Amino acid sequence: MEKLTEAQIEKHLENVEGWDYYDDAIHTTFEFDNFMDCFSVMTRIAMEAEKMEHHPDWHNVYATLEISLSTHDVNGLTEKDFKLAAAIEHIVGDE
Amino acid sequence: MEKLTEAQIEKHLENVEGWDYYDDAIHTTFEFDNFMDCFSVMTRIAMEAEKMEHHPDWHNVYATLEISLSTHDVNGLTEKDFKLAAAIEHIVGDE
Repeated sequence: MEKLTEAQIEKHLENVEGWDYYDDAIHTTFEFDNFMDCFSVMTRIAMEAEKMEHHPDWHNVYATLEISLSTHDVNGLTEKDFKLAAAIEHIVGDE
Repeated sequence: MEKLTEAQIEKHLENVEGWDYYDDAIHTTFEFDNFMDCFSVMTRIAMEAEKMEHHPDWHNVYATLEISLSTHDVNGLTEKDFKLAAAIEHIVGDE
């Protein structure tokens, strides 16, 4: 997996609304109605991440879920991060 | 639920080895072999937390799980936090 250039990152960001790019990673925050809804989504994301062999850096407090994605091997972003971000958006959109 | 005094907190800490007390919360970190093992434990903790109606502040990256417990309503610690900490230790000990 190759590290994406700034231009490539800009292009990818157009497809994942609500994600911000800083500190060599992409970040987003979701708010759910309660912990159960939040953790249900986390479970679906966990399965997807495990299948992709690419895992999130995430922080949960009750119904709030903060997610950061990056690829440690390249110390930046790769296609994998945007693939996982798109999968997360799909999962959250389903709820 | 009443806010615990410093003396009560010291006493409770004796029963949950590996937890540190600072910033009005108790904290610990677990390292697992991989993401699947880590998330399996998170799932068991989530169920227990939901049953207790008391939820963790937690951060996961791959096989590392950082947990902080506190009771927002009292802006400090209550029996609930130590009850959840003990449940978490029990779950992790089972793995």
